[in-house]
Amino acid sequence: MISNQFFNTQHAPIGAHASLTLGFPGARGGMDLERCGAPNQDILIALESNERPGLFDVLPFVNLQAGSESARYVADHAGLGGDNIVLRAFAQSAIERKFAIASDSWTAGDLTYTLYSPGGAIPDPALGDTLDLQRALVPAVWAEVTVDNTKGTRARTVALGFNRIDPCYGLRHIKGDDGLVGFGSSFDMALVTNHPGAWSAMGMAWQEMLDVVNAPNRKMGLGGQGMVGFDVPAHTSVTLRFAYCFHRAGVATGGMATRYLYNRWFDSTEAVGRFALREFDDAKQRALRADEKLRNSALSDAQKFTVAHATRSYLFSTQMLEQNGQPLWNVNEGEYNMINTLDLVPDHSLYEVQQHPWTVRNVLDQYTARYSFTDSITWRGETVDGGISFTHDMGAAAVFMPPATSAYERVNLTGCFSQMTMEELLNWVLTAGLYVQASEDLGWLKKNTPVLLQCLQSMERRDHPDAAQRVGVMRWDSTRCGTGREITTYDCIDLSLGQASGNTYLGGKLWAASVVLARLFERVSESDGLARAKHQARLAAATITAAAGADGRIPALLEGRTEAIILPVIEGLAYAHFGGAHEALALDGEFADYFKALSRHMMEHVLRDDTCLYADGGWRISSTSANTFPAKVYVCQFAARHVLRLPIDAINRRADIAHANWQLHPELSAWCWSEQVVDGVLYAAKYYPRGVNSNVWLTE
Amino acid sequence: MISNQFFNTQHAPIGAHASLTLGFPGARGGMDLERCGAPNQDILIALESNERPGLFDVLPFVNLQAGSESARYVADHAGLGGDNIVLRAFAQSAIERKFAIASDSWTAGDLTYTLYSPGGAIPDPALGDTLDLQRALVPAVWAEVTVDNTKGTRARTVALGFNRIDPCYGLRHIKGDDGLVGFGSSFDMALVTNHPGAWSAMGMAWQEMLDVVNAPNRKMGLGGQGMVGFDVPAHTSVTLRFAYCFHRAGVATGGMATRYLYNRWFDSTEAVGRFALREFDDAKQRALRADEKLRNSALSDAQKFTVAHATRSYLFSTQMLEQNGQPLWNVNEGEYNMINTLDLVPDHSLYEVQQHPWTVRNVLDQYTARYSFTDSITWRGETVDGGISFTHDMGAAAVFMPPATSAYERVNLTGCFSQMTMEELLNWVLTAGLYVQASEDLGWLKKNTPVLLQCLQSMERRDHPDAAQRVGVMRWDSTRCGTGREITTYDCIDLSLGQASGNTYLGGKLWAASVVLARLFERVSESDGLARAKHQARLAAATITAAAGADGRIPALLEGRTEAIILPVIEGLAYAHFGGAHEALALDGEFADYFKALSRHMMEHVLRDDTCLYADGGWRISSTSANTFPAKVYVCQFAARHVLRLPIDAINRRADIAHANWQLHPELSAWCWSEQVVDGVLYAAKYYPRGVNSNVWLTE
Repeated sequence: MISNQFFNTQHAPIGAHASLTLGFPGARGGMDLERCGAPNQDILIALESNERPGLFDVLPFVNLQAGSESARYVADHAGLGGDNIVLRAFAQSAIERKFAIASDSWTAGDLTYTLYSPGGAIPDPALGDTLDLQRALVPAVWAEVTVDNTKGTRARTVALGFNRIDPCYGLRHIKGDDGLVGFGSSFDMALVTNHPGAWSAMGMAWQEMLDVVNAPNRKMGLGGQGMVGFDVPAHTSVTLRFAYCFHRAGVATGGMATRYLYNRWFDSTEAVGRFALREFDDAKQRALRADEKLRNSALSDAQKFTVAHATRSYLFSTQMLEQNGQPLWNVNEGEYNMINTLDLVPDHSLYEVQQHPWTVRNVLDQYTARYSFTDSITWRGETVDGGISFTHDMGAAAVFMPPATSAYERVNLTGCFSQMTMEELLNWVLTAGLYVQASEDLGWLKKNTPVLLQCLQSMERRDHPDAAQRVGVMRWDSTRCGTGREITTYDCIDLSLGQASGNTYLGGKLWAASVVLARLFERVSESDGLARAKHQARLAAATITAAAGADGRIPALLEGRTEAIILPVIEGLAYAHFGGAHEALALDGEFADYFKALSRHMMEHVLRDDTCLYADGGWRISSTSANTFPAKVYVCQFAARHVLRLPIDAINRRADIAHANWQLHPELSAWCWSEQVVDGVLYAAKYYPRGVNSNVWLTE
Repeated sequence: MISNQFFNTQHAPIGAHASLTLGFPGARGGMDLERCGAPNQDILIALESNERPGLFDVLPFVNLQAGSESARYVADHAGLGGDNIVLRAFAQSAIERKFAIASDSWTAGDLTYTLYSPGGAIPDPALGDTLDLQRALVPAVWAEVTVDNTKGTRARTVALGFNRIDPCYGLRHIKGDDGLVGFGSSFDMALVTNHPGAWSAMGMAWQEMLDVVNAPNRKMGLGGQGMVGFDVPAHTSVTLRFAYCFHRAGVATGGMATRYLYNRWFDSTEAVGRFALREFDDAKQRALRADEKLRNSALSDAQKFTVAHATRSYLFSTQMLEQNGQPLWNVNEGEYNMINTLDLVPDHSLYEVQQHPWTVRNVLDQYTARYSFTDSITWRGETVDGGISFTHDMGAAAVFMPPATSAYERVNLTGCFSQMTMEELLNWVLTAGLYVQASEDLGWLKKNTPVLLQCLQSMERRDHPDAAQRVGVMRWDSTRCGTGREITTYDCIDLSLGQASGNTYLGGKLWAASVVLARLFERVSESDGLARAKHQARLAAATITAAAGADGRIPALLEGRTEAIILPVIEGLAYAHFGGAHEALALDGEFADYFKALSRHMMEHVLRDDTCLYADGGWRISSTSANTFPAKVYVCQFAARHVLRLPIDAINRRADIAHANWQLHPELSAWCWSEQVVDGVLYAAKYYPRGVNSNVWLTE
């Protein structure tokens, strides 16, 4: 179904905040360590043609128009070699790409280039520095290059390379006594192989380095282009293995000093490369197994594409750090690069609890320890004590904020950058539910029951401090807003989803958090909490159900003020589902009326061409906003299909194709998976991790 | 005399490879740590007008057209504050700049902004970690801001700031218990003050942060703009002190691991800032003394400008590293960023022997230990053993090359990037002479006499291996050239200076190296070496003198092949002068005929409008090349004026003005001091250190 095979995707190790981003034509990808955007680097994959010596065909990921850097030194650079070398890009039509979740392969002519980034589960470091832990965290991307020269009558050079992107540090040759060959850029990236006979080169133009006459000069030290080459003999087929290596030594974050955990075993790109090459078979097998699992699933091709592409962007954003020897998990927020943004944590956790639930616990504990607070709340001129909540994030761009403050939230605003106090309170609770349900870690649950009780109380008070006046929907804003008002994660959508107070989207999440709390309190026999949580869920369900008009439309805001039809009023159902609230979710159970109201709202108001469906069948978040959030749509699709059991197969199938095509835009797909789309066109939130929540589709 | 006061110059600590580059209009300067080019960063210096609150006048070093970064998050950013704040640049005509070697000051309206970068001598670290050593090496630039609000009727905000340039790491607030206030970018730069009442801000637009209504949001964590502000009370005049701080932790170089020596005392930008602010008085006094010394010299205004401007570019390029606790001095090569380029070492040493001769010894020893070699030599089809020489450089862009290899030199070339074996041999010898003459370090001389004897033998053999056939000018090329030929430091000039073999420029340097060797051998009573060095000097002088035609023109190449008139045939005289060869340099002494020949060549051939003088009076290196090297001209001016005593005052004065104006080009002066000029227009070798040799003028 892929409408455009030349899109960028992230080939990312897990936990390294790194990616070899590749796929979009031109020098538009590259090795991205912590940049949160492709560095527009030349990625050279070149094979000498059989047609004539010195004529090289290249995959279209380099800028062939660039002049030689030697012009900076001398106007006339005749004699530097390469005058007879010609690089030409393979015709796009001659290239076949095989894209999967953990491998990605391009074949053209006699060349096949395959990248492996297996992702997968990270063992809990508490279980020791096992080989599996090292295999999971080694910050490398594996590459295989096959050259079929069986029909070739002479040796042909194959070369992989990239150009320097660091503003300060130059390229360096790598040559180990153990046969390791390659080159590095700065101290943080390298390309290596251990294929016997391979050679490295540095220079000012690819042509120069590919010129065999100039071979003695390949070892020189000037120039921003690096290359690893091999001369494939006539009448043979050869497969070479490479590792693209990343490495960040030393202090990795400000505000609170941490380092990458992989520094326990790897002190340099060379150490990364040696390990990656040694473990190549394991990595390749893990990647192929991941591919097979997705390929064999019941998902449509469009869904498979979305899961694969979005999971890759998630992997890039992950960071396995440690502080004083203790692991610290972080999922950065794509191009916005905020630390463990709590808006996104429940979505990432939907995936992580399947892979490595201990990282979810790690983030929950970080929030409790350093980024929780208690506030005052205010409504209609009254101000009283509030309760516990959590910050929107822990910092941004590798700088941790002081305790109890986020990078994002400001005072005195009613839109983007205001406080998300209620949203984050619910997110912490829902994530706790996901964790306990997947891990069965009752020890953690018991230890955190007091926190969960505080959360329940805080949820109650933000509805109304006076129990008698509660309706199950949040109305009291945190005084941290100053003269402003609380917003939701939909910070760039209009009032219908932007305003927290009275919002039925947040009401739906409050319901979900309440039934999850009830389930948690039940497991630890916390009867008072259980009763209050159930009561709150009933209030929320009753209020939202009653809010629906005669036509079945559930308003976005209880107080009115907008005619918008919103989709995410059902979103919370998904977290409740994975939080183990199965009894509450029985369609014919206690909350049957609530589900009927939600279903009617969906079928009669949301899924209509004149409200929340775009012309291409993609789904809008709100009928009054041109802007949509694809990952939030993914989870709502799941809720509609799998929790509410709505009969929307055709609508879903059409939506899946539209959503996939958005990410495959012929120009904007340079940005990898993106989470803000305006009228079907990628707009912002590039390189974003949240789409990994599409993995829930695999559980249906 | 300054024709354009809006030129970039480097405000650089010594040994930190760092600069606050500033002076060119627009966002064309910035904090440069190891980039070797201004990062085009906004440098904000803003003062609220007395006219109306919220109207700020700024020095013209920011891009006022830039949009707010908040557009990346949300289309409509109303409410973020700053809507009533207006920034306008001071009219250029309203700004007065006072430029000096170690201070630089801009005054406009009620604002004066002064930067201090005192430079100065680095004590030998072998004498201990003294306070003076720390003061010399602290990687900071000091800034003073005076706001005269004595006539102001209300408080006015003054603010300094800059925007993030690191692709990965964000800005961070700095707030110490000791009153330190400011912000940092990545871990490597910061702006701090300890002025009571100062505040820091981070945000997405200057306007936002300057808006007092928005003050509570100044402490937020998103955004690429950082600022330190202070509200100057009415009816007062206030002077605030700031430090622009640099810091590079950890391994600073590849190929051979080193770190910045200042890490002994400073573990962060904050530690740098604290020390710099504590030692502000000392730094300011040192800067003002350096200014005064140059101001009180007999130099013309044009010369003073050149010395000040060029010395600043040298300071940027310096790097005080250490390896295993042992100091390692490096002067990087400007934008080309090669390590300790030996081409440039004698020129830098002309300055360094006056300041801190131990750094010269340090580099000489590095070359002997790691970057010397012995080669074979070849001429006219014959190949024999050569002798000792040294590589062109030690590496590039912070990557050390393997022993005995340079980043620059390649095989099989006859132009740029070929080998400079003879040139570097002479450079090492001449530098040794400068060091011993200035330091009187006879211990080092005795220890290195065997190396100097090897050098002498190598010089002899490159003339001709057969003593009977020697003429005092190099003819045998190193076989390291492959099929190519040796070149000189004038690698981008034509044959007249590009080809080493038979070149009278190199011949003049061979003469100089020979008389310096003779002087050195005399001091250690090495009589055989003394006799041979003198003999070689005589041969060189005789050959060059005899080569002059009946018209007095000394050909560039002994063999003919070019009609070029070259200036640097006299260049070696300057190194001989500072190498202590006073007896040999007596104009009426043993080499009187040689000096007469050189003087005639200069007066009758070089200094003519149709040969080596440009229309503006600037000097060409070679009559057949449009390209000239200003620093090499500076040293030739010195040789002509002070060694040969040529009566060229008027010609010199005109040249000095032309040379200064080249560097003040209204557009190209963004590059700071540059060392390649084509027809009077800066062309390449930007940010270059070699012009520091102009300091020899102060000895006249």
